[in-house]
Amino acid sequence: MDQFTTIADQRAWSRAQLLAGKRIGFVPTMGALHEGHLSLVRVARQKSDVVVASIFVNPTQFDNPEDLERYPRTLEADLSMLAGAGCAAVFTPTPAEMYQEGHATFVEVVGPLTDKLCAATRPGHFRGVATVVTKLFGVVRPDVAVFGQKDLQQVLIVNRMVTDLNLPVEVVVAPTVRDPDGLAMSSRNRRLSAAGRAKALGLPRGLELARQAFGAGERQSLKLIELVANELLVHENVELDYCDVINLNGFAEVTTADHRCVLAAAVFVDGVRLIDHIHLDGRAIAVADVDV
Amino acid sequence: MDQFTTIADQRAWSRAQLLAGKRIGFVPTMGALHEGHLSLVRVARQKSDVVVASIFVNPTQFDNPEDLERYPRTLEADLSMLAGAGCAAVFTPTPAEMYQEGHATFVEVVGPLTDKLCAATRPGHFRGVATVVTKLFGVVRPDVAVFGQKDLQQVLIVNRMVTDLNLPVEVVVAPTVRDPDGLAMSSRNRRLSAAGRAKALGLPRGLELARQAFGAGERQSLKLIELVANELLVHENVELDYCDVINLNGFAEVTTADHRCVLAAAVFVDGVRLIDHIHLDGRAIAVADVDV
Repeated sequence: MDQFTTIADQRAWSRAQLLAGKRIGFVPTMGALHEGHLSLVRVARQKSDVVVASIFVNPTQFDNPEDLERYPRTLEADLSMLAGAGCAAVFTPTPAEMYQEGHATFVEVVGPLTDKLCAATRPGHFRGVATVVTKLFGVVRPDVAVFGQKDLQQVLIVNRMVTDLNLPVEVVVAPTVRDPDGLAMSSRNRRLSAAGRAKALGLPRGLELARQAFGAGERQSLKLIELVANELLVHENVELDYCDVINLNGFAEVTTADHRCVLAAAVFVDGVRLIDHIHLDGRAIAVADVDV
Repeated sequence: MDQFTTIADQRAWSRAQLLAGKRIGFVPTMGALHEGHLSLVRVARQKSDVVVASIFVNPTQFDNPEDLERYPRTLEADLSMLAGAGCAAVFTPTPAEMYQEGHATFVEVVGPLTDKLCAATRPGHFRGVATVVTKLFGVVRPDVAVFGQKDLQQVLIVNRMVTDLNLPVEVVVAPTVRDPDGLAMSSRNRRLSAAGRAKALGLPRGLELARQAFGAGERQSLKLIELVANELLVHENVELDYCDVINLNGFAEVTTADHRCVLAAAVFVDGVRLIDHIHLDGRAIAVADVDV
């Protein structure tokens, strides 16, 4: 596996692939890799000839400097996992390489995708995501890019941006990967103690209870939300950041759920922020399912 | 010359060029072409293997709906001029093709490039320019794109954006082309009557007087600006939109001029808005000359 730390080197490699007629698959990451990331690499391999991953903890998407500071970094392990998963190259730029002096350009998605959930509680976060993804696409020049469904709002925003800016990239969503205990895999999970993890399990448990209640006929958003809150708020040092029912047709918060809705939540457990959601009809989500 | 009206068709053509190892040159235009545009095509031909022009009157960069409505459109003549200049393809999308339902993404450049001159008097204009240029680059996938120096602020903003978003495109500035009477070529000139044109000539004449005064030792911005204003404001129905001395090192308005400064002005002549500028040391400007 090749490793590139400069834009020029990654660009030269990508250009050679393009000229050789290879389809480039791309998995952008912030490192601290887990099985969820590797599942994205596998999906990318199915859809392309060569896969590039990037590892870059992007400062412009952190609204909180302490969160940026504490974000886990495990480069050596990451490289070995990516090589094992069949990546052809990995792009690992420094912040100074990605944001040169005088950087003054931002990509912003407006509208229903960016006025709620994580966008409402993390100001500037998705502007940072949209900007860095555009930049990474400009360097790596992928034909297809794979994102995890766990970060649902992120992949929908990236897909909107790719459509709107006519970027020559296909955006693919890969299903959320969970540990056997049900917790959605996240780089942040490693910051949880055993006791924290036990509390965090209330999130997938509550979402699954809500899905079952929806299956049994419950349609009131507040009742579904309550099932999640009840699993979490019994614990100390657990705070709900948000918990909402969102219709994928229009991406609006709704008071009455239907089969096109997700129940999405963000929670702080001992100060660690975790997100998860469930499609109330139980299916995995593809970008084509979403109309916004 | 091929003509494409859909994104899919232009994209397929560009992909075939890339796979054939051809360097694509690109000249984005709003049509109503004149010799200035053709000079951009010639520069693009020198720097690439195949040249694509686009003709698209971009609605999102017009702050004034009446100005958009009145913008000249001369498609048949444009196509014949581009073919004659050696373009291999022209991309002529409709507004509906470029801005699909639900469009919600914008590219914005902040800082000294976008707080003065045309940015100050045309709110949203450069956001529209940055967005549509990013989109056109995504469709056409050029290796090099050529812009006219007449729209100096525009090309500097595009260059900043390309650098910041790591778009795989080289931005080139080509010198302003003038009619024999000195007026900078512009699609808007055809909206001037003979009398209007006579008044408009005060703009290049005033700029040239200022350059001569600078050459003779004048350094006070106000004195240089006065030379331009005096040539214009003697006429009826002539209004200065702005007239400023800007240092290319930092792109700040300065009260004392030096050899890195331009004197830039926008003027309404009988309701037609014209822009022009002069580098006080007389040289044409390249992006490498500008530090912002």
